[in-house]
Amino acid sequence: MMRSHRCGELNKRHSGEEVILCGWVNSIRDHGGVIFFDIRDRYGMTQVVSSPEKFSEEEFEKIKELRNEWVVRIEGVVKERTPETVNLKIPTGEIEVSLKKIEVLNTSLPLPFEISEADNKIEETLKLKYRYLHIRTSGITENLRKRALFSHRIREFLISEDFIEVETPILTKSTPEGARDFIVPSRLNPGKFYALPQSPQLFKQLLMVGGLDRYFQIARCFRDEDLRADRQPEFTQIDIEMSFIDESDIISLTEKMLQYAIEKTFNISVEIPFPNMSYDSAMSKYGSDTPDLRTPLEYRDLTSVFQKTEIKVLRNIVEKGGIIKGFVFNEGEKISLKDIENIDRAIKEAGGGGLGWIRIKGTDIQSPFRKFLPLEVIDELKSTVNISYVENSIVFFLAGDEKKITELLNIIKRAVMEKITDNKVDTFKFVWIKNFPLFEFNSEEKRFQAVHHPFTSPKEEDIHKFRTDPGSMRSRAYDIVLNGIEIGGGSIRINKKDVQEEVFRTIGLEIKDATERFGFLLRALEYGAPPHGGIALGLDRLIMLLTGESSIRETIAFPKTQKGTCPLTDAPGDIEEKLLKENRIKIDTEKIK
Amino acid sequence: MMRSHRCGELNKRHSGEEVILCGWVNSIRDHGGVIFFDIRDRYGMTQVVSSPEKFSEEEFEKIKELRNEWVVRIEGVVKERTPETVNLKIPTGEIEVSLKKIEVLNTSLPLPFEISEADNKIEETLKLKYRYLHIRTSGITENLRKRALFSHRIREFLISEDFIEVETPILTKSTPEGARDFIVPSRLNPGKFYALPQSPQLFKQLLMVGGLDRYFQIARCFRDEDLRADRQPEFTQIDIEMSFIDESDIISLTEKMLQYAIEKTFNISVEIPFPNMSYDSAMSKYGSDTPDLRTPLEYRDLTSVFQKTEIKVLRNIVEKGGIIKGFVFNEGEKISLKDIENIDRAIKEAGGGGLGWIRIKGTDIQSPFRKFLPLEVIDELKSTVNISYVENSIVFFLAGDEKKITELLNIIKRAVMEKITDNKVDTFKFVWIKNFPLFEFNSEEKRFQAVHHPFTSPKEEDIHKFRTDPGSMRSRAYDIVLNGIEIGGGSIRINKKDVQEEVFRTIGLEIKDATERFGFLLRALEYGAPPHGGIALGLDRLIMLLTGESSIRETIAFPKTQKGTCPLTDAPGDIEEKLLKENRIKIDTEKIK
Repeated sequence: MMRSHRCGELNKRHSGEEVILCGWVNSIRDHGGVIFFDIRDRYGMTQVVSSPEKFSEEEFEKIKELRNEWVVRIEGVVKERTPETVNLKIPTGEIEVSLKKIEVLNTSLPLPFEISEADNKIEETLKLKYRYLHIRTSGITENLRKRALFSHRIREFLISEDFIEVETPILTKSTPEGARDFIVPSRLNPGKFYALPQSPQLFKQLLMVGGLDRYFQIARCFRDEDLRADRQPEFTQIDIEMSFIDESDIISLTEKMLQYAIEKTFNISVEIPFPNMSYDSAMSKYGSDTPDLRTPLEYRDLTSVFQKTEIKVLRNIVEKGGIIKGFVFNEGEKISLKDIENIDRAIKEAGGGGLGWIRIKGTDIQSPFRKFLPLEVIDELKSTVNISYVENSIVFFLAGDEKKITELLNIIKRAVMEKITDNKVDTFKFVWIKNFPLFEFNSEEKRFQAVHHPFTSPKEEDIHKFRTDPGSMRSRAYDIVLNGIEIGGGSIRINKKDVQEEVFRTIGLEIKDATERFGFLLRALEYGAPPHGGIALGLDRLIMLLTGESSIRETIAFPKTQKGTCPLTDAPGDIEEKLLKENRIKIDTEKIK
Repeated sequence: MMRSHRCGELNKRHSGEEVILCGWVNSIRDHGGVIFFDIRDRYGMTQVVSSPEKFSEEEFEKIKELRNEWVVRIEGVVKERTPETVNLKIPTGEIEVSLKKIEVLNTSLPLPFEISEADNKIEETLKLKYRYLHIRTSGITENLRKRALFSHRIREFLISEDFIEVETPILTKSTPEGARDFIVPSRLNPGKFYALPQSPQLFKQLLMVGGLDRYFQIARCFRDEDLRADRQPEFTQIDIEMSFIDESDIISLTEKMLQYAIEKTFNISVEIPFPNMSYDSAMSKYGSDTPDLRTPLEYRDLTSVFQKTEIKVLRNIVEKGGIIKGFVFNEGEKISLKDIENIDRAIKEAGGGGLGWIRIKGTDIQSPFRKFLPLEVIDELKSTVNISYVENSIVFFLAGDEKKITELLNIIKRAVMEKITDNKVDTFKFVWIKNFPLFEFNSEEKRFQAVHHPFTSPKEEDIHKFRTDPGSMRSRAYDIVLNGIEIGGGSIRINKKDVQEEVFRTIGLEIKDATERFGFLLRALEYGAPPHGGIALGLDRLIMLLTGESSIRETIAFPKTQKGTCPLTDAPGDIEEKLLKENRIKIDTEKIK
């Protein structure tokens, strides 16, 4: 037998038992000739005691040669620790194993970084190069375990709801959806290329046409983007599609699924249904379509309040069609005059006018506009911005064009949020955003583009507007946001060929091009495509939020750098000339500087 | 509400209920003005009756316009069928729905093939082009459902055994393991390429070095092979790795896992432990390292039996160092003299000498050698080949070099097997093959190569033979075979750097090359790599065997042709010039004829 127990499970009840453990040597201590070390595996750590009298001199010399991270197999007897050496912080802290026999299964060079520092000070590239050591000595294993368990719970839930998990192809066709495709030359079809899927979108729609009724997949997806912070070229999504449903079915299924999997995996209670708001309302109240409801600093229209004052600069702006908008921050004591000056400067640098602010400390009002603010205005302001705590509140406001000042209010909000040190761990606020526009106008390319993807259905009542006013059309899409981060989105899809063609036409895709790229979808829509829709949730981000990590890299076993490289394997790498030839491609050296 | 029920669930207990169903129209019949049709979804089929008196003339005209495969939503009342129209073959066969309202959700062009013919006569490419229709009208959905359920049971079992499912990278490094890699140009790293993994082998080993202890993944793998029949460029394997174990742990885990998942998914009872045999014994008894134990035609050494006869031709061969080997086929009545002549010809065409045969029908012995076969010899022969049924048995035998005649015996076996029409559905015979050689000599390249992969550990007692007799070294590998098809294999891996280097050296990989390709593994082995091993099982083949299909294409949603193409999406396809430029590659047009 290799081992009788794991390193995290022995306790007083095992006293007197002969046990065998395997693991890594951890923190060796020589206490007056008696050698203590811990033996560690994924499951925990157990203290081992070796007394010189139990071994020949030669054997004991070998024990003295042990080093950290060597792999050993030990045999010994479980003993209760003396009361003063009990360590109640670990499950095995009441016992130790008195060593009878040790076998070194493998040695180890000294680690390139200190274990205890693994998570903090070490350079990212070094951590990635020795990723296996970082995994061994950090919380990553636990993140991976939780991730796996969460995925399993998702499957458990969906399978109980009659969903079928279907593996869709990784080697597929280039069908640009927005991001760039990774491409794969086909050796058997010279000059032709596969593309790696940006999502299983079209395959899941085809499965619905195929009558599968309820599909899901925990699917690997690929996007060749210029990697912004915390993006990965490959990522995983929980991908779902259903037939004969509407928006509410998918929303309610998603809520129940998340509730089930989160509660079962993380022991975090999730209240459903989640709140929802329209895209317009999110933009107006939070200046963002991914509002963070943990800190609901809501923007309010203050135009009518200030119109009652004699503040000329504001009245002028309003007369020219502008509005006045602001929010209250109830922890005013955290904002100094200096802070206000800094915010004012940031607003001006971002192209804004002056920052308006009013501090309300009980009956004490401070503001550059103090003398123009009679008590009735203050009272109306208080009720408009909804001041809940009057010890010390500050109302910030700006005047001008709504879109512009909403952007600028976001700058103020960010500055203010930095003052709240409480990072609200374990608070999880979900919100659905609905009623998105179907198209947005790309002013650079002077054409409409799909806000979600071009397979998103417009609202039934807007279908007549394709040729008259596409900019005002609303879609049947919905996004789900957790703590200010978009974790997923979906829609009811188009299941009629003529509507799909109208969308392609509106985004400037000629029928010829559309047929070339998406002909197979258009064809499928002619053969009894049922009404269908679905959703995709980003697993990496979701796990990052639920484990309280600040980067998705901590939730992925072998992540890549921002340049898309893997310092561990040195991928991507050079390729043998022979393989390039077989694939009928050449490296375009002229382009490489 | 889109639907109140699914098409497979209504029965007598629902009589009188108002229901809403969605699905596809199936087989419309006009019975004297009353229109019957079936409505079909993934879950079943329900008969719908529409009587003209319940509709306006205009409405009824619309019902008459319905065509097969149109998508409809119907409202109606469940009625019991009259006794003479009850159809007990389907779960809904005792009722029908009396139509009150119908909505056409989508129309359909006439299908490009007849549904009923879907599985048989239609050309493969056409089926793949309209894969969604083939899925809708065939047993593929049920195969996909079983596959998903099986995977889920595998996960359930492994998670209960503390395994962590880890997603390893798809964009990784080219590390040729035998087959060709698919390559992916890296736009962000011009001139460099990712490779798609042939298996997660090295990552799972690194996870063991990382202390993960128990890993699994249902993993997509990629091999750019010249596709033989029933291979796919991408395939799925159940991939497992464990630390601090030996062969028996993995074998027993695999058996329990398969037993659990097969019994739960397919309701097929699986007896464990599976039998096992050495590679040598499999080759000698079955002429194959993937023996099909459903038809245990075992080869036996008959040299000593025939040495007692006066048959000169045989004695001559034995004197020159040859042997005599054969097997008994107990259904001799299925083999005519004509068949024997055909087999004899096939053996000669394959370079063999003459075919030896003896037919034993009770006391009646027929054979070209009849007169040289005294009763004692027949008796000894009977007991050696283990004749269980003596109505009519034939012993086939050949004499010569063992390796050669074993190959030729396989020809006889195949010919004989074709006579057994009984295809043994639902019989599942597993067997482990062990004690493989570590290396085999590639006589073309004049070098040793790894029989499994170069990370397979040799047996401890053979480690001293690297420099003296590598050809005789045995590995710690094991294959698992089901009904004559290899469904997986694994091994205890090398966890010591020096042993790994010896293997690389023996297969002709210079230290420099080895470091370039596998340096990260060699490095990891220096940092406390624990003893570890694992297995990988081919999911596609396993599901094919368990569902009784004859091709893995029937177990994959969107399979590719033997040329690696997808007639549905037209992948692989042409690529935009811009994308090639961005990826810094050119198509090597000279090579394309």
